[in-house]
Amino acid sequence: MSEAATARTADDGPLAIICGGGSLPFAVADAVGKRGRRVVLFAIRGWADPQRVASYRHHWAAVGQFGWFCRLARQEGCRDVVFIGSMVRPAIWHIRPDFKTLRLLPRIYGIFRGGDDHLLKGVAAIFEEHGFHLLGAHAVAPEILMPEGTLGRERPGERDRSDIAKGLALLNASSPFDVGQAVVVADARVLAIEAAEGTDRMLARIAELRQSGRIAVASGRGVLVKAAKRGQDRRVDLPSIGPQTVEGAARAGLAGIAVVAGSTIVAEPERISATADRERLFVLGVRDQTAEQ
Amino acid sequence: MSEAATARTADDGPLAIICGGGSLPFAVADAVGKRGRRVVLFAIRGWADPQRVASYRHHWAAVGQFGWFCRLARQEGCRDVVFIGSMVRPAIWHIRPDFKTLRLLPRIYGIFRGGDDHLLKGVAAIFEEHGFHLLGAHAVAPEILMPEGTLGRERPGERDRSDIAKGLALLNASSPFDVGQAVVVADARVLAIEAAEGTDRMLARIAELRQSGRIAVASGRGVLVKAAKRGQDRRVDLPSIGPQTVEGAARAGLAGIAVVAGSTIVAEPERISATADRERLFVLGVRDQTAEQ
Repeated sequence: MSEAATARTADDGPLAIICGGGSLPFAVADAVGKRGRRVVLFAIRGWADPQRVASYRHHWAAVGQFGWFCRLARQEGCRDVVFIGSMVRPAIWHIRPDFKTLRLLPRIYGIFRGGDDHLLKGVAAIFEEHGFHLLGAHAVAPEILMPEGTLGRERPGERDRSDIAKGLALLNASSPFDVGQAVVVADARVLAIEAAEGTDRMLARIAELRQSGRIAVASGRGVLVKAAKRGQDRRVDLPSIGPQTVEGAARAGLAGIAVVAGSTIVAEPERISATADRERLFVLGVRDQTAEQ
Repeated sequence: MSEAATARTADDGPLAIICGGGSLPFAVADAVGKRGRRVVLFAIRGWADPQRVASYRHHWAAVGQFGWFCRLARQEGCRDVVFIGSMVRPAIWHIRPDFKTLRLLPRIYGIFRGGDDHLLKGVAAIFEEHGFHLLGAHAVAPEILMPEGTLGRERPGERDRSDIAKGLALLNASSPFDVGQAVVVADARVLAIEAAEGTDRMLARIAELRQSGRIAVASGRGVLVKAAKRGQDRRVDLPSIGPQTVEGAARAGLAGIAVVAGSTIVAEPERISATADRERLFVLGVRDQTAEQ
């Protein structure tokens, strides 16, 4: 539960990785594997990439098969669990609950109302109560976190730095509402705030608004700023960026991306650098001003 | 400038109405006309509706023709000016400045950087310095403001009221960043925050996210909440709703709309009521908790 507990259990049998979509689950699996720990993937049907899952020891599961997960994870000798990868919160009526999940449904119903953070904290508590240690991906594979400084060649200018400061302040102000890990600020103007749509769609919106003339800021200006919500449970939901984030930011005509160093997951850093250099965008890890952990 | 000054000059010759898009300019013109005051429309090419403009005394102008406006408005005997109607902020290089505007360009360039409120305050100051009184549409036509209570038959439930409270609190928190007059909250979860895209596009996004399964909240839940930014210059930019807002909220599967009574402009209230009743949405004017004026 605490970082200390993490260290204590780090060699305790294989690690269960519950895999959503994207490439992050495999980056984590590889990083953990390199440290000599075995991993077992619990791939979520409809989200995890079947081709890539196939190269690891794995089981497939549907959302709601919690009893099944508990049984199999125990058989595999897993006590530590990591959630990783993209997944849209399912509609509660899309969950096909097994018996154990069914008994938990009234509680699940409660945690489904409210923001993402509320949902994830509730889910985390359920795992803990069933004897699993829920760990953050950053705790088992710290090399996937964004470092301070830039990936790639480009550097932010003075105007960009002031847009970044404004973005971070806005994310900080909206954080108590369990919303928005990302904003776009250009020339001191806030162009977009992310809520349920996610970062990729928010960037696509900026691109559209620019094309339709609704945003008149010059191309090559503006910054995508991402930060973890304050009080967010880092075990289940750190913000992340990947090559597609850089591509989306380029299509949106931005100057670059700024994320908080040490609390943002970076998928495929080499590809991010290469894409950033090609598109002439900066990708910056800033020091966390509000760090209390 | 103050409300007192407004009252003093209310009978001072005809009112100049600078018209953007939509039906609001005509609602204001009619309301002012009914009180026996003459109006002259300065219709902005590309935005104001030519067919409707034709029934009023009017002149056409392009963005950037400030010298021309000053000359004509003085010839018409107008000292009071109202801005009203939708208009996207133009790219500064789309402005075709006349001589006076050209001399003001360095200053205009400065006010174009930053949020909407910053832009509008800067524009307002320029009008004032040239001897015009810039009035809010609500000051010359208070009947266009949303009253407390509901338009139409539907009433919000308890869940809706708690979504409304959360929405107002979030708008209040993001207000210092000169962003977002609107949010959508459903089941205590913030689904969208408006920035440069405007309310109609934000509602269209909710509809899309619902169709694609990315938002799993049941249909008929969630509230569009709109409020003026704190410190916003009410003379140039009050939030507004019209029948199309109700239609957009219906397509987004929401339960209703809540706006701040007395500081939201209502275009075509009868059509809003009729649309709300047909779509079974509530349209509520809430008392302004933060009113300091």
